[in-house]
Amino acid sequence: MIKVAINGYGTIGRRVADAVRAQKDMSVAGIVKRKPDYVATEASRNYRIFASDKESLKSFANSNLEAEGTMEELMDDVDIIVDATPEGQGEKNINIYRAKKKKAIFQGGEPATLAEASFNAYGNFVDSWGKDYVRVVSCNTTAMARTVSVCIEKFGVRKVEATIIRRATDPNDSKKGPINAIEPSLGFPSHHGPDLKTVLAIGEANTVAVKVPTTLMHVHVVNLTLEKPIAQEDTLDLFRDYGRIISVSGKDGLTSTAQLMDLGKEMGRKRGDMFEIPVWKESIYAYNDNLRYIQAVHQESDVVPENIDAIRSMLQEKDRETSIGETDRALEIRGKS
Amino acid sequence: MIKVAINGYGTIGRRVADAVRAQKDMSVAGIVKRKPDYVATEASRNYRIFASDKESLKSFANSNLEAEGTMEELMDDVDIIVDATPEGQGEKNINIYRAKKKKAIFQGGEPATLAEASFNAYGNFVDSWGKDYVRVVSCNTTAMARTVSVCIEKFGVRKVEATIIRRATDPNDSKKGPINAIEPSLGFPSHHGPDLKTVLAIGEANTVAVKVPTTLMHVHVVNLTLEKPIAQEDTLDLFRDYGRIISVSGKDGLTSTAQLMDLGKEMGRKRGDMFEIPVWKESIYAYNDNLRYIQAVHQESDVVPENIDAIRSMLQEKDRETSIGETDRALEIRGKS
Repeated sequence: MIKVAINGYGTIGRRVADAVRAQKDMSVAGIVKRKPDYVATEASRNYRIFASDKESLKSFANSNLEAEGTMEELMDDVDIIVDATPEGQGEKNINIYRAKKKKAIFQGGEPATLAEASFNAYGNFVDSWGKDYVRVVSCNTTAMARTVSVCIEKFGVRKVEATIIRRATDPNDSKKGPINAIEPSLGFPSHHGPDLKTVLAIGEANTVAVKVPTTLMHVHVVNLTLEKPIAQEDTLDLFRDYGRIISVSGKDGLTSTAQLMDLGKEMGRKRGDMFEIPVWKESIYAYNDNLRYIQAVHQESDVVPENIDAIRSMLQEKDRETSIGETDRALEIRGKS
Repeated sequence: MIKVAINGYGTIGRRVADAVRAQKDMSVAGIVKRKPDYVATEASRNYRIFASDKESLKSFANSNLEAEGTMEELMDDVDIIVDATPEGQGEKNINIYRAKKKKAIFQGGEPATLAEASFNAYGNFVDSWGKDYVRVVSCNTTAMARTVSVCIEKFGVRKVEATIIRRATDPNDSKKGPINAIEPSLGFPSHHGPDLKTVLAIGEANTVAVKVPTTLMHVHVVNLTLEKPIAQEDTLDLFRDYGRIISVSGKDGLTSTAQLMDLGKEMGRKRGDMFEIPVWKESIYAYNDNLRYIQAVHQESDVVPENIDAIRSMLQEKDRETSIGETDRALEIRGKS
């Protein structure tokens, strides 16, 4: 049984915790939370709670909720740490993990250079095999890596061009904007293109990101230049054999991210999550050596299965196919439809 | 075992179906859906599907999803129908139910005059005892009825004044607005005040409604004129003994509807629902014979427990306390905290 610590219980941490708990070969030793807020209270129904440091431990002591100790105490008794602390904390935390001689997974907000490898299950599972420090790429890069890696496998891809229409913030955040503006990222290419190259062997990857006032999902308009021309019929069932990608259609009423998130709720998963990347059937269009499609990304949850697979790769527990299969069954991921 | 048909599987219907399924004394005989869309596909994992009419049956026949028959066929074998069809359909449907000699519950979008009684579990459970046609009042009226009925019980209430800040539409709708405007209802009082009087014995109830560009929850600023002056300390634990009302606080991080809906997700219910009416502790303020508080309303789910209790009242199955207790246990409603 792999013992996992979850350091940081925000949008990603809480979901990875539940996903670890759903696996047969791993368990959550404890979760680390900074503040004794409503999220900590709910977490305490399922997990042992640890404070992030002595200061944080005091704030728990002053609340109705008890923490069993600090992050460092939790760490002594685990095999691996999933670090889901806020962006930029990784640099500080990796020193603690090193001192404790513990493996750790970081999230996509950290720089690629922090870790020995960046990770995507479809794209480069083996690159993290036995590694001590691995970074699961961001929600956007994970989504692109999934669908592009399928196209690499099937057709070969020379170039990726994508426009990323980003949600402004997560649904539980009421502080950030914009609420009524469209805000382009003013660095070109946006970091997503270069980030994609950390997990896929691809020549060119250029991305543009534009932020819009919504919280539900991101949307990607992806344009690939393939190694050879293909016909429209070659795109039939393009993603069928890949559980973490689902084909959706306006004909079924799925015309926007609003209905996709509603589908997530109807599927009955905790928090209405959608781990799969939905691709609109109607948007898949091949012309000469170009392939275009539109996909959506549930930014809160698509990296969750990758975190699980990264654990198994780093601990050399299961090969790629076995790990992906087990993760998908445990999380009821249901592509291949 | 009470056999229930769910006619209409939209925002309310799908939730009432799952709530019926969670009770020990009732079961869902089938659900009626007009279109074979993604919602119908998901529903078919748990329920027998019926088409709303012959036209609708054809559209199922032309899809991948089969319907077992039409609404009227389903109806022959049930004890009661929960009608959750779109607003205004009730008038047409009640004739069908009458012809089939079946009891039916309507939702708050229908006029009060359609039914023999309007229903709120805390407010007037017994008024629906043995009745054939009952209307569960709307999400907003249900929310007000819950907290105001507690205040009637404790202090006596002479007058209700409330400002209802309404969400524009439900999260799965991407067609309606406004997206960037504040839109007052231009009828005064808004229908909510008079509607409240259909379930509570109260002299005056005046409400103003204003629509804002959000989909998560409504918020009510409630101002009551009591029968006698009270002191601030009389409001301590005001709602503690009522499971369907929860006290929340900014101190725990619950500062807006965004975090309240996040709490719903963390509580782990399907779709992240919040059946309880959250009241902000900080907002409860007594001065002379006035009592003010601010509450939020998860418009998609707060009427769900009332539909269950209305079934038991109409079929004379359980008294008020027993029914509310059973409903709350089955739905893991957890006020009284």
